[in-house]
Amino acid sequence: MSGPDALGDLRDRLRQFAADRDWQQFHAPKNLAIALSVEAAELLEQFQWLSEEASRRLPPAELGRVREELADVLLYLVRLADELGVDLAAAARDKIELNARKYPVDKARGTSRKSTDL
Amino acid sequence: MSGPDALGDLRDRLRQFAADRDWQQFHAPKNLAIALSVEAAELLEQFQWLSEEASRRLPPAELGRVREELADVLLYLVRLADELGVDLAAAARDKIELNARKYPVDKARGTSRKSTDL
Amino acid sequence: MSGPDALGDLRDRLRQFAADRDWQQFHAPKNLAIALSVEAAELLEQFQWLSEEASRRLPPAELGRVREELADVLLYLVRLADELGVDLAAAARDKIELNARKYPVDKARGTSRKSTDL
Amino acid sequence: MSGPDALGDLRDRLRQFAADRDWQQFHAPKNLAIALSVEAAELLEQFQWLSEEASRRLPPAELGRVREELADVLLYLVRLADELGVDLAAAARDKIELNARKYPVDKARGTSRKSTDL
Repeated sequence: MSGPDALGDLRDRLRQFAADRDWQQFHAPKNLAIALSVEAAELLEQFQWLSEEASRRLPPAELGRVREELADVLLYLVRLADELGVDLAAAARDKIELNARKYPVDKARGTSRKSTDL
Repeated sequence: MSGPDALGDLRDRLRQFAADRDWQQFHAPKNLAIALSVEAAELLEQFQWLSEEASRRLPPAELGRVREELADVLLYLVRLADELGVDLAAAARDKIELNARKYPVDKARGTSRKSTDL
Repeated sequence: MSGPDALGDLRDRLRQFAADRDWQQFHAPKNLAIALSVEAAELLEQFQWLSEEASRRLPPAELGRVREELADVLLYLVRLADELGVDLAAAARDKIELNARKYPVDKARGTSRKSTDL
Repeated sequence: MSGPDALGDLRDRLRQFAADRDWQQFHAPKNLAIALSVEAAELLEQFQWLSEEASRRLPPAELGRVREELADVLLYLVRLADELGVDLAAAARDKIELNARKYPVDKARGTSRKSTDL
């Protein structure tokens, strides 16, 4: 994740990629949200029948496929955020702060309960 | 998406967030891939009954909810990539190059067909 | 959907199918819920770039693919319910009654708002 | 799953439910496929942080929530199949036969590999 402003760079490249192919017509946020969800499921499919432990030590060939699916999710996420005018990095930082309040260290330590059950 | 290395910064913050709460035990890639897929569906839910046109002009309150769901997807994506040792930005750049070969401008212009049908 | 007790028949066939292949070991409800979600996304993928109108009049070849994906969703749903000891038909009838109370005809007519917003 | 033709009965009830509320306008197959996918994710969410073993022995309160989510998936699946004119039970039986050919007992026993890897 090296380099300055990787997210901004991806946003610009994808915007150009879509413009070059006249694909903005298909890129309604509704459609991009579908595509994102489909890609997230393709990523999940790679882990479908693995144990949790096996998912921590993927063989190289499977890791390669997973890497490509991770990329697909990011590409649609960046494209969708761009169409909506949302600054992804700022939104993520805001959400981490919100989560820090919802899951204070002393209450959330070692439990997977939802914040409403803490 | 301003600032240097937003993805690297998020990765570090989330790694610390999980460590502070002793959550690495829950963060098997399999579980994070489930969480990512669930968040992508929560994002999609916001667009569920909207027309494509309505999805392009969300009222501010709905855009605020969508922004938060976009953030949730990114947070799990970054956490998952970190657990797998994948450089998300590099993976995304590689995938854009691959897509550029699969969808050459002259064949892909104005169509939503899959590359295998071009 | 002809015939008596199609759901019970599917449940029995799938239980036998899994037993014959010694697959019960993989059929933890968590894994079946993942598989169901992945199949639902494969179904959704068929509609991904279609307009709502186009989705109402699928060409025969596409309808054939969609039919197969619908079947996949039902198979995992029935298998999952069986592993959990849930009577799917009874659960569905109960939910329709609950929905009838949440969405009374006079308030819900012609709107796609959630029940909490009616 | 007792009783004659539970799927046909659900199909008829849901068709009437939608007609009473003038909801057919929202029930384009594309939208119903989104709704189905969202419900499948809400079901999956219940298992998100559970181990496989814990998912086999849900406490009653959690099983009740899961039962409701299973019902939601079935309701949208039946509604979608009806809008597409697909006989769900017949499609499922056809798919079981196809799967029996793709996963012969002697090759598939005890393995979770995809049919293309058998």
